[in-house]
Amino acid sequence: MLCAGKKRRSSCPVTFALDRVGDKWSLLIVRDLMFRGKETYGEFLNSGDGIATNVLADRLKCLETEGIIERSRDPENKRRYLYRLTDKGLDLAPLLLEMIRWSAKYDADTGTPEEFLGMIENDMEGLIKKVREGMKI
Amino acid sequence: MLCAGKKRRSSCPVTFALDRVGDKWSLLIVRDLMFRGKETYGEFLNSGDGIATNVLADRLKCLETEGIIERSRDPENKRRYLYRLTDKGLDLAPLLLEMIRWSAKYDADTGTPEEFLGMIENDMEGLIKKVREGMKI
Repeated sequence: MLCAGKKRRSSCPVTFALDRVGDKWSLLIVRDLMFRGKETYGEFLNSGDGIATNVLADRLKCLETEGIIERSRDPENKRRYLYRLTDKGLDLAPLLLEMIRWSAKYDADTGTPEEFLGMIENDMEGLIKKVREGMKI
Repeated sequence: MLCAGKKRRSSCPVTFALDRVGDKWSLLIVRDLMFRGKETYGEFLNSGDGIATNVLADRLKCLETEGIIERSRDPENKRRYLYRLTDKGLDLAPLLLEMIRWSAKYDADTGTPEEFLGMIENDMEGLIKKVREGMKI
């Protein structure tokens, strides 16, 4: 994963995206923020995927450096940060939804709700709008 | 990266996709096959991204195990294999195109041709069809 300051190898758009979010853990954090309503370090840590604390801390820092997420102090607990997706992060919605669509097609045990899949198939544009407005799965 | 036989942690569709193609090198191989007309081990190795031979060999094996690519002997050189995307691999086109769209929006130095971006914006469905039929960028 590239973080600010590292040298670029090419102007390829696939490499650009992969260097920023083409790391499993980064995209799982984006997923947690986008679809699951998670917003704290502790919530990401206990998301069930088994991310290590040092990896989580590193990826949050990278995602913030890249302008994909931003953090603010939790007004109810000043020692804690709340994370949220920026517009740049929310613009990853189509990519994640296409990922979900592909998985649902090829994973016989997919956990994606039928209703959600129907929305992906029939009204992707409307769904992206809803996700941006805060709809959770 | 998950390869056949490893234990799954969840039925989450994002995890499913990331465990299969959520590794930078795997998706760069898919990109080379999908958009650049590359089809041999040597062509992937010299793609300019600096993939190591052992990583390339491992990712090709995993992608084949997952049914995303398939290989056949090169009729012109029996010692060489030719790789191509299966339908499951070609179905990754929307995901890669959304990745390209996102990068083009946020990378001031994007190498994506204007004409191609226009097709992404105006006729994604037609573009996916063309990519499946073998159109290269």
